[in-house]
Amino acid sequence: MKTIEELQVLIDQEIQARYQILEPKELYEPMWYALSNGGKRLRPVFVLLGCQLFSDDIGKAILPAVGIEMFHNFTLLHDDIMDHASMRRNLPTVHVKWDLNRGILSGDALAIQANIFISSCEKDVLPDVLEVFNTTGLQVCEGQQYDINFEQMAEVSVAQYMNMIRLKTAVLIAGSLQIGAIIGGAKPEWAKRIYDMGIGIGMAFQLQDDYLDAFGDPVTFGKNIGTDILTNKKTYLLIKAQELGNPEHLETLRNYYSSNDFDPVEKVQKVKKVFTDLHIDQEIIGKVHDYSNLALEILKELPVSLERKDELNKFTCNLMDRIR
Amino acid sequence: MKTIEELQVLIDQEIQARYQILEPKELYEPMWYALSNGGKRLRPVFVLLGCQLFSDDIGKAILPAVGIEMFHNFTLLHDDIMDHASMRRNLPTVHVKWDLNRGILSGDALAIQANIFISSCEKDVLPDVLEVFNTTGLQVCEGQQYDINFEQMAEVSVAQYMNMIRLKTAVLIAGSLQIGAIIGGAKPEWAKRIYDMGIGIGMAFQLQDDYLDAFGDPVTFGKNIGTDILTNKKTYLLIKAQELGNPEHLETLRNYYSSNDFDPVEKVQKVKKVFTDLHIDQEIIGKVHDYSNLALEILKELPVSLERKDELNKFTCNLMDRIR
Repeated sequence: MKTIEELQVLIDQEIQARYQILEPKELYEPMWYALSNGGKRLRPVFVLLGCQLFSDDIGKAILPAVGIEMFHNFTLLHDDIMDHASMRRNLPTVHVKWDLNRGILSGDALAIQANIFISSCEKDVLPDVLEVFNTTGLQVCEGQQYDINFEQMAEVSVAQYMNMIRLKTAVLIAGSLQIGAIIGGAKPEWAKRIYDMGIGIGMAFQLQDDYLDAFGDPVTFGKNIGTDILTNKKTYLLIKAQELGNPEHLETLRNYYSSNDFDPVEKVQKVKKVFTDLHIDQEIIGKVHDYSNLALEILKELPVSLERKDELNKFTCNLMDRIR
Repeated sequence: MKTIEELQVLIDQEIQARYQILEPKELYEPMWYALSNGGKRLRPVFVLLGCQLFSDDIGKAILPAVGIEMFHNFTLLHDDIMDHASMRRNLPTVHVKWDLNRGILSGDALAIQANIFISSCEKDVLPDVLEVFNTTGLQVCEGQQYDINFEQMAEVSVAQYMNMIRLKTAVLIAGSLQIGAIIGGAKPEWAKRIYDMGIGIGMAFQLQDDYLDAFGDPVTFGKNIGTDILTNKKTYLLIKAQELGNPEHLETLRNYYSSNDFDPVEKVQKVKKVFTDLHIDQEIIGKVHDYSNLALEILKELPVSLERKDELNKFTCNLMDRIR
């Protein structure tokens, strides 16, 4: 069985091996610029982990896994335009480095390249793989639209937020695991359970991200602390605080979220104090544990050897450990 | 055998039957706004015509045909953003009616919907259908990139222009015919020949469009005459004039294409005079005939009954008749 680190290296090697700037280079350069810019390769690794649960031959899942990473990068290119993001993984985003047109068009081309790689799986599993992939892709668009809608909404409920992160983040992780499982030869009912496990992992992963953005260790988190607060992002923490806060808390939040004229350190500190006063930091840790445990329960039921489950088990436990 | 007009009605009915605004409506409304906005439904009709060449059961090609129309509309949504187009078929374009984000994201969702519909073909032909569809899709992106590049280039050669319109326009018509033929049960070598026929039809179609924009009858053409000239578009007519013109012609073109400070009627008239003085109007008619005849030759060789070929034959002959 390969470890997650080994699978990450494998995916990086496969992507690098395919690096090729075809003509017109204005189209292909931004695609490879985005694809080569590292990241954790989480989604393709999940494809391989899903396959590894059922098969010793993960080779047949590698190209579809690369396709999933291409699809993910396509969504990043377009999301960065929609979110006006100028940096991604310490490099300028495509529409900033080049221009809007290249951000749109090279994103489109990446989506089609993704289809080509996904479709390279074995013929007998192709219809099932495509059904999961296309359904998931459409849901990711729905999630992004809800996320955009939330920016304009005065109030977002916890249920609406959970539905948004399920669509925007969790379904692609779940779909990646299911596609890997299908390619690995899983029976349909188990492939579906693995999808459910992936939803648990994906929800835990996103909620952990919300938590770490406010309460993480700046050194190990690898991003600046408080970015979500400073950009007025409607995260689980804020939405829950708006639900639970007394009039004084709500006044503090309204105050700090109605303008950007505050000292950033002060704003982060005061908003975090509202979160901790309301114990939302503890509550979100509980939610991460709940979703992780849901995933672990499904993994436990799975009728394959412990050895095959090991890496998924470790990954899921790590989600909890990082915010214990 | 169904006529082109009957097939257009069939496609429109199938699209209307699927009209459904799911949640979030901000995503699905623009998709259906674009899809419902008519047009000639040329590409899906070609899917059905390709199928009809080999099969009495065109029913199995209808959903993939709708998928091709969805893909075409996805490219229109994004092209309209890139080309700063504010109107399409007498209605505001999506990014103008709503905003940039909805133009990008509903385009993405249309592309994924297209994949879902294309993938609904029978399993035994799915890998071949997808190979044609995905290869074609990537080429359409390449064509759009070349078209964008041309705007910034002082000189574009005829060969570069022909390559661009092949990628941007002809391959999707060719791919549509080939996909229909594959679904209809064509042998691989015939499906490939039908693709070549489609390239001929597509090239003739685009060159006819270039001709009609300058020399068409405003009543029957259905668009304003001279739009390409007034928007300084590098069409076959202009590129060929730059290749063939004497110093005086070139000076006239430089003059009228270097600014927009001219009376539009005067500009169209003077530029068209350069085209006719150089006999480029006649030359492009010759090119349309050459490409149409190439298509007709392939159609003639095809080992199916004359009755099955009839509609494609008529369509191709019409391309020539409209600019005789």
